[in-house]
Amino acid sequence: MLPPETEDQKGAAAGLASETADIGTRFTPGVPAPTMYAGASHLLEAARDASKCIFVPRGDLALGTLVPFKGRRAAGSRRMRSRRRKPDPAAGHDLEALFRPQSIAVVGASANERSQGYEFVQGLVEIGFPGPIYPVNPKLDELLGLKAYPRLEEIPGPVDFVISAVPASAALEVVDGAKAKGTKLIHFFTARFTETGREDAAELERELSRRIREAGIRVIGPNCMGLYYPKEKITFDPVLPREPGNVGFLTQSGSHAFRVIMRGKDRGLRFSKVISYGNALDLNEADLLEHFAEDPDTEVIATYIEGLRDGRRFLDALRRAAARKPVVVLKGGRTAAGRVAAASHTAALASQQAVWQAAVRQAGALEVGSLNELIDMVVAFSLAGPAKGPRVAVLGGAGGETVETADICHEAGLDVAPLPQDIREALRDKMPHAWDWVGNPVDGSILGWGRFEALEVIQLMAASPAYDLIFANARGVEHMLNREDGEKIFWNAIDVLKRLGKENGKATVIVMGEPEFRDKRRWKAAMSAREEFAKAGVAIYPDIERAARSMGRYVRYVAERQEQQ
Amino acid sequence: MLPPETEDQKGAAAGLASETADIGTRFTPGVPAPTMYAGASHLLEAARDASKCIFVPRGDLALGTLVPFKGRRAAGSRRMRSRRRKPDPAAGHDLEALFRPQSIAVVGASANERSQGYEFVQGLVEIGFPGPIYPVNPKLDELLGLKAYPRLEEIPGPVDFVISAVPASAALEVVDGAKAKGTKLIHFFTARFTETGREDAAELERELSRRIREAGIRVIGPNCMGLYYPKEKITFDPVLPREPGNVGFLTQSGSHAFRVIMRGKDRGLRFSKVISYGNALDLNEADLLEHFAEDPDTEVIATYIEGLRDGRRFLDALRRAAARKPVVVLKGGRTAAGRVAAASHTAALASQQAVWQAAVRQAGALEVGSLNELIDMVVAFSLAGPAKGPRVAVLGGAGGETVETADICHEAGLDVAPLPQDIREALRDKMPHAWDWVGNPVDGSILGWGRFEALEVIQLMAASPAYDLIFANARGVEHMLNREDGEKIFWNAIDVLKRLGKENGKATVIVMGEPEFRDKRRWKAAMSAREEFAKAGVAIYPDIERAARSMGRYVRYVAERQEQQ
Repeated sequence: MLPPETEDQKGAAAGLASETADIGTRFTPGVPAPTMYAGASHLLEAARDASKCIFVPRGDLALGTLVPFKGRRAAGSRRMRSRRRKPDPAAGHDLEALFRPQSIAVVGASANERSQGYEFVQGLVEIGFPGPIYPVNPKLDELLGLKAYPRLEEIPGPVDFVISAVPASAALEVVDGAKAKGTKLIHFFTARFTETGREDAAELERELSRRIREAGIRVIGPNCMGLYYPKEKITFDPVLPREPGNVGFLTQSGSHAFRVIMRGKDRGLRFSKVISYGNALDLNEADLLEHFAEDPDTEVIATYIEGLRDGRRFLDALRRAAARKPVVVLKGGRTAAGRVAAASHTAALASQQAVWQAAVRQAGALEVGSLNELIDMVVAFSLAGPAKGPRVAVLGGAGGETVETADICHEAGLDVAPLPQDIREALRDKMPHAWDWVGNPVDGSILGWGRFEALEVIQLMAASPAYDLIFANARGVEHMLNREDGEKIFWNAIDVLKRLGKENGKATVIVMGEPEFRDKRRWKAAMSAREEFAKAGVAIYPDIERAARSMGRYVRYVAERQEQQ
Repeated sequence: MLPPETEDQKGAAAGLASETADIGTRFTPGVPAPTMYAGASHLLEAARDASKCIFVPRGDLALGTLVPFKGRRAAGSRRMRSRRRKPDPAAGHDLEALFRPQSIAVVGASANERSQGYEFVQGLVEIGFPGPIYPVNPKLDELLGLKAYPRLEEIPGPVDFVISAVPASAALEVVDGAKAKGTKLIHFFTARFTETGREDAAELERELSRRIREAGIRVIGPNCMGLYYPKEKITFDPVLPREPGNVGFLTQSGSHAFRVIMRGKDRGLRFSKVISYGNALDLNEADLLEHFAEDPDTEVIATYIEGLRDGRRFLDALRRAAARKPVVVLKGGRTAAGRVAAASHTAALASQQAVWQAAVRQAGALEVGSLNELIDMVVAFSLAGPAKGPRVAVLGGAGGETVETADICHEAGLDVAPLPQDIREALRDKMPHAWDWVGNPVDGSILGWGRFEALEVIQLMAASPAYDLIFANARGVEHMLNREDGEKIFWNAIDVLKRLGKENGKATVIVMGEPEFRDKRRWKAAMSAREEFAKAGVAIYPDIERAARSMGRYVRYVAERQEQQ
């Protein structure tokens, strides 16, 4: 085992990578960096140990990085070898058959309820996977009422899909067993390979790669949560929702898979498939993106990527996918600090931010900077509704929040268009105290939340041709619970807001966060209202900023796509 | 009554204001705009009704706007007249005496528990105001055990402070009554004055202004929540916390006062004073800022301002205040849309954003763009602890979130400095599986949340001279409740994180948001942990982005102030 890199070496490599990515196209694939450094020697000097670096290019947009030779040499070489493989243009189609297994074995199944080897089996049982589920573990006779087998080879029927939760040292055995059973797809939850930075672990991963290729088995992982496909009743965790939806998510991080599904659930999102693919030993970002682009159940694609295995093919796939459906892209390891973290997370060699951003934009996809932003944008694409322009009718909350909502909507690029005269006239008799005073945003406080005339105004605005969008700040609506008949007024308000978008065929977002009051009644009401919105498939956001920013980006994205068509 | 402005007129005025603010210094105070427009006739043409506009300058930085003559003429003139009043340099000192009344009358006190006239009295009773409280209402004999009086004049003892909750039409009577009682300070919760855009209401406000000047009474408001001074046991709402703290907040919006106190409470903030001053008929932003600058109980100042009454004096005050303590400034009505909303909220004439931002920066204060950002920055200044540099030790959460935390911290301007070799060596024996793999950020998932070795690493980092700051992402820590001994491990983790900053004398922020899990046990635990952090005065943030952005700005602010000194 080689000594691990020091942090200094890592830091130097990361710094150099970020400096050289811009001039990456000067390099020839596979040639050690110093040889090619004719015109950029000052950059070399910036690196302490540049002679030990190689440049690993991926694709025509210089999405490559310099990586230290020492301790990474073999991994780098492997990556270059893998480039020589011809991409399989039919891969996107073929995967669907793999993702619909008739039988599943969980190798490393465990009776320890806190282990993932238990949860994989439990998840499949509880979601109701209709085919046979085979726990595999020589120490078990049965698990959750299912007969267990000591080895894959001893399972009587065919095994289409193997989930591996064994330690890395047993991974090769799993491949041999799966080969014997004619298995087409293995998911390796199994981790501790290249991401450890250790040479013995990296060598094991390379051997694994050779072995699966020989066996003709496709692999998800290693070091990931695998497949969540609720329509086919496949899940990696029993707590995930069972209803399928229209969002496809491919992610290198397993915990992000979990987070996006669970946070998304609270926001009303449901998924066609989520695939956590970890170190991308075999199936990579390009394969999966191609798959989602063609998948008829997927209407919105989200991606979390730390490092590209095949940059050129990925960008091609991104361009084609974005031409068909919205693609939201989050890049882990955008920064020098993130790159170091990504390397020890999924062994990814991340690329330079500006280059990446330009490439994503050029491909017609939407880049985001955090997981929350990714969820926010998917909520907009999946739930907000049709956006025909930027003119937004705003329910502003109350008082200062009305001003804040106006400012933030404006800053997000939305047009807080004045209240049209016909609506003002329509209000003259109804609201003699405020018809001339009320405006856009509608201020709940000048209209009396209690009687909730603000609702009447926003309904008129929502129906008016003067507006393309609806932005309703419902924070604080729970204050009206304090009034006489509070429950009725409150739930009526929620009901009106819930129907506003669909009734008017306009993109609509609702702001509904944690209430300021901590008394149980109002807290519970606000939380239940949030659930109601999510259940109704209404786009909800926890604060004004995130709602406005998301709607602004959504509207611009739609407008730009229309211009291009 | 003049007809109200149309939205078109408002829009034109707002547009013109924003276009002319940059060239504002070409104007002479008080001279109608067209006269001065020699060199900028193209701008005039841009406004539909420019001949009806006057330029209202405030201060030397062109913090003025063009406002429509029609329907606002008198208000504009009044503002110009008020400029001629000499600022009272001792105002800041004098106010403290006014804010410490020995007796309080609530005119418009009400037995309706849902009315503000009830809540003002209830608040003072429940917080335990030690002096006499006099409810005033001819229809009441008593309220909450207190004898009620039909009119101010019939109260037997002196009345230092009057809170008015009567309708606008009765406001002048309140002044007369207060004058008869020798009252020094009135807070007008009473609203519906200039902010309605109606001339009769504006005229009433001007008459009110004349009347209080003649009577020598200072006024907070109208159209606001008034004074929250927990140390003196004065509050405008019984639900507000009773413990005093070190944050002073002056705000034109009453609902923002409420929001900042309540959201701040959940974040561990406590306040010296919060003053909601609405339309700023008398006491204005400059008076109050001067007051907070000198107030020994106030260590951090936050301001929410929609329009300046006295721009020059405010900027002077801002400069002086920011030289002594951090000042966080949120401007309502930064945008054209916000300006319109601000006019109908507190009748404020807001100014051009770029000019404003430059002025705030120049004064050494910190501008924010939303209420949440204001609270976030106050949390940093009030609770984070000493920031000596940008090198941050990061507990990254788990998996993809570790990469995300690294990226976001880096993008926020923090230095995610590599793990020093001495810490790595110290871990060699303890964590043979990960000592060479672990880095900064510390990834909880590669260290096993269950045993929680991640905590040991972050403790070593927190104590190391290699780091100036501590950033702990505690989202997901509640997952460990699932383990054997979960409760113990979880609360031990919270305890360690709670003490991390103070024990090491380093600025520390904790990320602790809503958990992904909706099961009661983990939800409750996460919420209780958040309360624990708040109670311990630890700076907590709901997500990585807000925490990193706040810490980045905080560190830069501190560094810049040190450079200047």
